This record gives sequence, structure tokens and C-alpha cells, in this order.
Amino acid sequence: MQHPEELLKQYEANFSKNNFNTSPTNLYKPVEHIMQMKGKKIRPLLVLMSCDMFGGDVQQAMSPAFAMEVFHNFTLVHDDIMDKADIRRGQPTVHKVYGTNAAILAGDVMLAYAYKYLTSVEGVKIPALLDIFNKTAIEIFEGQQMDVDFETRADVSLHEYLKMVEYKTSVLLACCMQIGAIVAGASADEQKKAYDFGLYLGLSFQIKDDLLDAFGEGEKVGKKIGGDILLNKKTYLLISTMQLASLAQREQLNHLLLEADEQKKITGIQELMKATGGYEQSNQKAEQLFNAAIEALSSISIDLSAKQMLTAVAQKINTRDY
Amino acid sequence: MQHPEELLKQYEANFSKNNFNTSPTNLYKPVEHIMQMKGKKIRPLLVLMSCDMFGGDVQQAMSPAFAMEVFHNFTLVHDDIMDKADIRRGQPTVHKVYGTNAAILAGDVMLAYAYKYLTSVEGVKIPALLDIFNKTAIEIFEGQQMDVDFETRADVSLHEYLKMVEYKTSVLLACCMQIGAIVAGASADEQKKAYDFGLYLGLSFQIKDDLLDAFGEGEKVGKKIGGDILLNKKTYLLISTMQLASLAQREQLNHLLLEADEQKKITGIQELMKATGGYEQSNQKAEQLFNAAIEALSSISIDLSAKQMLTAVAQKINTRDY
Repeated sequence: MQHPEELLKQYEANFSKNNFNTSPTNLYKPVEHIMQMKGKKIRPLLVLMSCDMFGGDVQQAMSPAFAMEVFHNFTLVHDDIMDKADIRRGQPTVHKVYGTNAAILAGDVMLAYAYKYLTSVEGVKIPALLDIFNKTAIEIFEGQQMDVDFETRADVSLHEYLKMVEYKTSVLLACCMQIGAIVAGASADEQKKAYDFGLYLGLSFQIKDDLLDAFGEGEKVGKKIGGDILLNKKTYLLISTMQLASLAQREQLNHLLLEADEQKKITGIQELMKATGGYEQSNQKAEQLFNAAIEALSSISIDLSAKQMLTAVAQKINTRDY
Repeated sequence: MQHPEELLKQYEANFSKNNFNTSPTNLYKPVEHIMQMKGKKIRPLLVLMSCDMFGGDVQQAMSPAFAMEVFHNFTLVHDDIMDKADIRRGQPTVHKVYGTNAAILAGDVMLAYAYKYLTSVEGVKIPALLDIFNKTAIEIFEGQQMDVDFETRADVSLHEYLKMVEYKTSVLLACCMQIGAIVAGASADEQKKAYDFGLYLGLSFQIKDDLLDAFGEGEKVGKKIGGDILLNKKTYLLISTMQLASLAQREQLNHLLLEADEQKKITGIQELMKATGGYEQSNQKAEQLFNAAIEALSSISIDLSAKQMLTAVAQKINTRDY
């Protein structure tokens, strides 16, 4: 099996130039704006590694890999409009530079291109690719809506939160793994295991991400520590903390959620997350989900070195080293 | 060949119930809002008639026909956001009722559903369906961008205007015809002729539409007469008028474009459209394009009664009786 860096090098060689039409420029400049931001390329990497580990021809998986990156970037463009986000990967967001209308339309055309590149493969493989991708795309939009709905609800359960994360984030990683497996011609059973690996990895990643947002860790967090806390964002971490809190702690927490002094709010809630055991429980949950990912991987009939390589990538993703 | 009303009856029977997921409701209520508006179902009708005239099984074309209606409605939802349109088919637009974010996301999920329904056919037909649909979807987004760009340009040529209309409006009708032909198993040559019929019909329809907007005709215009005139919209009619105007008429026109009194502006420009010959030229162009559509149709090897039925439908579309 090829090394991840080697796969990414081939990917970059295939897609370093422009892969969209160029006119009208007011449509394609916004597309270029998001596509040239240096992303981590996690999704195409998973497609290529999955194809490679099942013994498929990686070149055949290049277009679908690119499709997943285009799709992911499309969701970022539209999500940034909805979240009124000004900055993405250290650069101004598409709608900030080109306006909301241009960002809507750029996203739309990117979604069409994602389908185009996804299906630039042998005809016989197209139906299976479309099945999983259509399902995934629909789930992602549903997950985004759940996330929006949760903003105005106080009673989100851990179960509901995990479902939202599954749809909004995890299913795309899972889909990438399955797409690689389909291109490689893996059996339905092997496809399912590859899918599960991506699904659990995504869930684990998100809970880790919630922890990093609240507590940081060196320079791995590109954003301000405590951002979610200031927004009262119902993360796994905050929901756990609420559930585990004693009556007194609960009251304290409710006060802190309304606290205007930002530093006081962050420090106070951080302390409660630790004191209640919410921090500990979230850490354990992330670990448990990561182990489930590795278990799914280990049940696949591929050689050990491939598993080790994918495990290393999963660890890097999970600790934001990717 | 079955009568159009009969085909539409079967279509309604297939898709009268909800054809989307229902949860989260905040995602799918906006989808339902636009889908329940009584549209004319021109696009699914063209898919079904095209399939039927080539001797295909109309039931096989139902899902793709629905896909085209979903796609068309998706473009309306996003276009209405961009145009800040409050009313559509006599009802408040999706973003007006549910907000811009919900309308963006509802549109996105509809595009995924369009692909899902389009490809709910025999596997062997999927690649050809995707080829034409991907191309068409991308062109439609490009056409929408051209339309936006033209708003701030004074020098739009007739050629550019026709290209914009081709992309924004006509290619979807053409695509519907080709999709029906593909499902029926028609040859590439026959598919192309069916496509051209739709393309010319769409172009002719739009120029007629521009004429109706400026001059009305009984109760066929659902909107206020002169809407385009008040917006200085660069239609085929206005561009022709500008090009044919004498120096004196041109000066008059430039004044009228800045006129604040709405009725004075409409009447003045209407008069110039007739006096310059712009009205006449637009009428001739619409007729010429309609004839090109009928010519494409007549070159297809199907029986005369089918051609007559499709010609009648084209005439109804073109005169807004559909």
C-alpha cells in the first residue's frame, strides 16, 4: 500500500490546475477562492487510501476523490453564509468577498461538479457510487438543519447530539471510505466495514474537536479557545456537563451561561466541565468511538501494514495533526 | 401516443404524496412549500412526451420527470433569494416564509433529490442521463450568473442575451426532451433532434415572454404589465429597440430609462418599441425560433400524430396557455 503522502502528491498532481469552467468569471472566481484555500484534503485521502487498501487502481479513484473535496468545500461555502462566518482557514469567506448571491450560486455549481467528478468512472460502478453519495448528501443537509435547530433548544440530548454529528460530519468520512471501496471493487460486506470505520472516526473526531475548542492544546486550535463556550453551543462536552452536574453545579452553570464577562464565563465553565466529570466522560466517549473505528478496520480482510497505515492516519486526523 | 393530459394525470398519481423525507421538519417544510405550489409541470410533461413519442415505457420516465420538476423548483428557490422576490405563483416565496438560511438549505437538498430521482432508472441508462443533466445544471448556473452580470452592463448584445436565455431557460427544456429520449432508448441522433426542439422552443418562449411582459395580452400575464420596462431589463425587445433606434429616438429612450413617473415610462418606451421596429423584430425572432423547433421535431422519425401532439403542446407553452 502506498504512503498517504505519496497518494496526496498524486492527487495534487491531478488537480493542481483549474478543474472548472472559467466563464462567467463572476461565477467561477468564488469557486476558485474556496478551492485554493489550503485544506487538509482528509476526504480525498480517505477515498484514495480505501481504494488502495482494497487493491484498487488509485488512478480510477482520483475523480471521485476530487468530487468529495469539491462537495465538502461547497458545504463550507453555504454553511459560512448561514453562520455569518467571516473567516475560514485564515482567509475571508466566499460570501464576505463576493457577496451572498455569488456564494449561493458558486456553491450550487460546485454541487453539480461534485456529481460530475464522482461519476467520471466506469459506468458499471456509477449506480453504487450514486446510491451512497445521494444518501450521504441528503443526510448532511439534514444534519446541518439539526445543528441550526439545536441553537434554539435547551433540551438537546447526547443521543440527539450524536445523531446530528453523525449526519453533519461523520457520514461524509464514511462515504469517502465506501467510495474508495466501491471503486476498488470490494464486496458489500467490506464496503460496510470501511464505511463504519469512517463513521466512528468522524464521531470521535467531533467530540475531540469539542474538547479542543473548550480547552485547546498548544497550537493545534486554529481558533480562539472557548468559542463554543461563549456561544453556549450544545456540544457533547456541555451536554455531559449539564447532565452530570449536581443541583448546585447546575445552578452555577445556568448563571455562567448568561455571564457577560467573556473570560469569567470561559474559566468558570471550564472548571465546571472538569468538576462535574463532563470533561472526563467526553474524553472517554471519544476514545471509545475511536476504538470502534479501529475495530471496524481490523475486521477487514487486508494486510496488516495497510491497517497500520490507516490507523496512523486516523490518529493524525483525530489529534488534528492532519 | 398518449394525450398530454393523460400523461400528466399519471404523473400526478405517482407524485401526489410527499416524495422527500419529513424530518427535520424545518428542512422539509420549505421544500413542501415550493413543491405544493401549482406549477405548470411543463418540464415533466416534456420528459414524458419525449419518452412516449420514441416508443418508450412512460412509467420508466416518471422518476426522471419528477427529478426535472424538483430541479426546476430548486432553481426558483435560490433565484428568488438572489432576486429578493417576495411572491411566486401568487404565494410568498420560500425565503420570505422561512428565512434565507432555510431557503438555501432547502434548495441544496432538493438538488440532491433531483439527482436521486433522475438516476432511479435502469443502471445502463444512468451514465447518459448524468452526462446531459450535469452539463445542463452547470449551464443553468452559468446562465443565472450572466443574467446577474447583465444587470450592471449597458452594452449587452442580442447574441449575448440569447446565450444567456439559452443557458438560463432553454437548456432545461432541451434536457427534458433528451432525458425522455434516453429513457426510451432513442439513438444519439434522435436524442439530439429532441434536444434541439426543446432548445429552440425555450428561446422562442423567452422572447415571447419578454413581449408579453411589455405589452400584455388579456389575462395571460400573471404579473403587472411593464415590469421589465420599469427595471430597465435588457430583454431581446429592449436591445432590439436600442439597436434600431434613430439618434433622436435613442436620446428619447435614454431619457425614458431614467423617467421616474412609472406610467409615463411604460407608455413612452412601449411607443418607442413599436416605432423603432423593435417590437416587430422581436416578434419575428420568436416566430423564427419556434419554426426551428418545429423543424427539429419534424426531422424525427416518429409518426405524424405524435408530432402534431407535441406541436400543439409547444404552441400552448409558447402562448402561455400551459
